[in-house]
Amino acid sequence: MPAALLLSRFPPAFCDALAERLELIGPHDQDASIALPADVRSEIRVVITMGTIKCGAGLIDALPNLGLICNYGSGFEGTDHAAAAKRGIVVTNSPSGNASAVADLAMGLLLAACRNILVADRFVRDGRWNGQGTSAARMPLVHGLSGRKLGIFGLGEIGERIARRAEAFEMTVAYHNRSRRGDDRYPYHETLQSLAEWADVLVVAARADAGNRHIVSRDVMRALGPDGIVINIARGSLLDEMALAELLRDRELGAAGLDVFEHEPNVPAALTALDNIVLAPHIAGGTFDAHATLKSMVLANVDAFLAGRPIPTPVVLKAAAATATG
Amino acid sequence: MPAALLLSRFPPAFCDALAERLELIGPHDQDASIALPADVRSEIRVVITMGTIKCGAGLIDALPNLGLICNYGSGFEGTDHAAAAKRGIVVTNSPSGNASAVADLAMGLLLAACRNILVADRFVRDGRWNGQGTSAARMPLVHGLSGRKLGIFGLGEIGERIARRAEAFEMTVAYHNRSRRGDDRYPYHETLQSLAEWADVLVVAARADAGNRHIVSRDVMRALGPDGIVINIARGSLLDEMALAELLRDRELGAAGLDVFEHEPNVPAALTALDNIVLAPHIAGGTFDAHATLKSMVLANVDAFLAGRPIPTPVVLKAAAATATG
Repeated sequence: MPAALLLSRFPPAFCDALAERLELIGPHDQDASIALPADVRSEIRVVITMGTIKCGAGLIDALPNLGLICNYGSGFEGTDHAAAAKRGIVVTNSPSGNASAVADLAMGLLLAACRNILVADRFVRDGRWNGQGTSAARMPLVHGLSGRKLGIFGLGEIGERIARRAEAFEMTVAYHNRSRRGDDRYPYHETLQSLAEWADVLVVAARADAGNRHIVSRDVMRALGPDGIVINIARGSLLDEMALAELLRDRELGAAGLDVFEHEPNVPAALTALDNIVLAPHIAGGTFDAHATLKSMVLANVDAFLAGRPIPTPVVLKAAAATATG
Repeated sequence: MPAALLLSRFPPAFCDALAERLELIGPHDQDASIALPADVRSEIRVVITMGTIKCGAGLIDALPNLGLICNYGSGFEGTDHAAAAKRGIVVTNSPSGNASAVADLAMGLLLAACRNILVADRFVRDGRWNGQGTSAARMPLVHGLSGRKLGIFGLGEIGERIARRAEAFEMTVAYHNRSRRGDDRYPYHETLQSLAEWADVLVVAARADAGNRHIVSRDVMRALGPDGIVINIARGSLLDEMALAELLRDRELGAAGLDVFEHEPNVPAALTALDNIVLAPHIAGGTFDAHATLKSMVLANVDAFLAGRPIPTPVVLKAAAATATG
């Protein structure tokens, strides 16, 4: 029976469905996989991975019968595409399968950061509200969302859904992508710096690659101003976490919400020490609906591969500039 | 100089503007106001209050020259309207002045409750994420918002803004009001029970009065089911807090978000003990924008009263059935 190598843990329902088609090996990381006996490695026809997980040339070369690398999710930056292409190995992802779930969490982090929802909850639970008398709200007023400017870095599948949600909150939307889109639905900024200078809120929804590490720099974030807010639901590598922590600590930036980090699952203590940031453990795509969609997309790719039919959702590398990740 | 009696604390900028027009007395609550010397009471032409604050017949009768009662916010349930009407005293509120801010917090509480944002933040800060290994999200999957059904109890100024936001999150919306609206934009349910049986999420945005205490009952909330969510940004009296606490504790209801409580600022320990509820200290209207609007609406009413012109936003009592509060 041909085998699939898992480079990460995946939901049980997905693994069960996969096990009906292929013998499952793993989860093992890249190095442990390379160390497998040669007869085990030769059985592996499919690798199941995710964007943030490494699947490099060393592993690809160690799997002589590999034909398909499936990314569970829309990201695919962990895969060595050149090494795969050299062997004629197809790489797939699941574009937009979890876009609504990710856009929802982006807005959830934004509302939590903007309206101090975590601080408010502790304020009530710690008894600070009823400790002070008979009158109403004691927490300071804040700037709401209505009428404020939302800049989207990466107006892809996810960014578009964030834009639609932000418009319902009476916000004005503009965007920056590597290249301008064909439509004129939202104003375009030629540079991320220009977008940040215009915006009150910056949402990072761009695809990460080797060329854009820390593109959300200290200067970009400082341009949002002391009432500004940064949200990142894309990839941790895009944002300079140490600069963010300093700007938040010094109140040069108002607040932030992060679902992704450069060295997951490690989160710098400089961030966890702050009370003007909302932190989440990469859960933006973590809904039943989104996972059901991702599962069916991966299985459709696996089934097509095993039957020798055309692969439904191969990664088209030039599309990377269109951004959007999950 | 005629005087204004403050029945609560208000933002300094508002008090400063008011002090340019009237001598300020207070803040005092109802009983302390009644206990003021007769010559002080006779100077009071205007009372500045809020919906949740008591302004009863005893106080109104103790103020011989009272002509205007201004509610800062859209609620006015604390005022004895019959006692005011008997004396020809005009009662005003600030309809829709903070509707967008309140609708935003309703969605913020919903997203926080639905996506476990408070639990997620603690999960990261407590080091539970990086304590377990190298792979991604360890928090359980949840039901997202897309495709789910949102029932709005009270489709007024605030409820409409919640509906518009929920539609952007790809939710289906229906409502219950005391009477059906003239338009057909959203499906109407004749009873709150019917709405709750249909809905996955119930948002309470109705106006409170003496007749609807605990109308959001145990049966209504249980009808939402174990994945259901209740959000209340209207008034605490509308919802049976003890029943809510028991349903959440027993997981007969999934989650809740409350910005208002029956006996503010006291929140029952049965609620603060739960981890599937998000609590806020009545901050839904607490944005600079919303307060600037409320301030200008109250001042416009005061100026018109002092100049003998028609009052811009008197409370029209039969409009109470149209719901929406803040």
